[in-house]
Amino acid sequence: MNAIDRLATLFSKLPGIGKKSASRLTYHILDGDPGYARLLAEQLAHLHEAIKRCSRCGSFTESDPCPICADPGRDNEVICVVERAQDVRVIEESKEFHGRFHVLGGLIAPLEGINPRDLAIGSLLNRVTQEYIREVILALNPTVEGDTTALYIQTILKDCSVEVTRLASGLPVGGDLEYADRLTLSRSFRGRVKL
Amino acid sequence: MNAIDRLATLFSKLPGIGKKSASRLTYHILDGDPGYARLLAEQLAHLHEAIKRCSRCGSFTESDPCPICADPGRDNEVICVVERAQDVRVIEESKEFHGRFHVLGGLIAPLEGINPRDLAIGSLLNRVTQEYIREVILALNPTVEGDTTALYIQTILKDCSVEVTRLASGLPVGGDLEYADRLTLSRSFRGRVKL
Repeated sequence: MNAIDRLATLFSKLPGIGKKSASRLTYHILDGDPGYARLLAEQLAHLHEAIKRCSRCGSFTESDPCPICADPGRDNEVICVVERAQDVRVIEESKEFHGRFHVLGGLIAPLEGINPRDLAIGSLLNRVTQEYIREVILALNPTVEGDTTALYIQTILKDCSVEVTRLASGLPVGGDLEYADRLTLSRSFRGRVKL
Repeated sequence: MNAIDRLATLFSKLPGIGKKSASRLTYHILDGDPGYARLLAEQLAHLHEAIKRCSRCGSFTESDPCPICADPGRDNEVICVVERAQDVRVIEESKEFHGRFHVLGGLIAPLEGINPRDLAIGSLLNRVTQEYIREVILALNPTVEGDTTALYIQTILKDCSVEVTRLASGLPVGGDLEYADRLTLSRSFRGRVKL
């Protein structure tokens, strides 16, 4: 196995990159500027050193606590609970939310061996009881695992005086009724709003 | 810009990888084993050092001449002309060809400023006159640029006593007439074979 094959094999382990794409990427880099390959190598080598988990919310950060937890201008009384650290960025980009975050690190999925104790649910409970939280917004995917996890967190937080809400589920904006699946349609009926 | 954004920006420069995929790859690597990131970084840093161009045929190789040019068991009298070094691998994998290769490094495309003198056509002529070549097989894409380049090479080699052939163009095996475009269909008619 030569250097081309070794790099292509590594690329093919990435999500959404098959054998052909991996080979195409490798040749593209080989055909291109060696400076680009060097830069990419440096950033990769540096990534895990530079990026840590925020000890408070669990999101990826270069400083601890993360810029969001450290920002005094954000609403201290609302926590948005997300599955993965990358979800924080998606929500930040929407500019819809101004409170704090809490990263679970996954969703409850007993068939895959992921149980509540594998997730950052205990630390969520601690934050809710210690930080005077008014509302917990569950921003979990509308999937079976997301539903299960939402229900579990709702139960755990039942005795705290905190409102637990979940992001609305329904037709995507700009979408077409014709292409909506049955479950999405059913949820959008159940969650219909008065005009 | 933090380490996540820097790596995602670099990934997004690769072909077929948009902004969303680049971010997804970055988070996947960040979520995963740091050993993988280190290996990928090493291979990338090492790639341009390890892989050179064969001084004879122009294909990518770790040794010069490349294993194909150095193999005494291959047919010395047939040269297969390809556009890019990666085409050599595709043809090698088909196990259909047992001669030598010649990499042009592109196709003639005047609108993009690629002229014959930018390609390894002079060195092809040298090889044909010096190496007792019987046949030159043009394995160029059936595109306008491929056709132009094939015609040009045919003209250049007119006075050498060498047969110039080109890969057959027509319906792909397993394909369906219904989905063939007009040009492919027209070529498959013109190139029809007697049964």
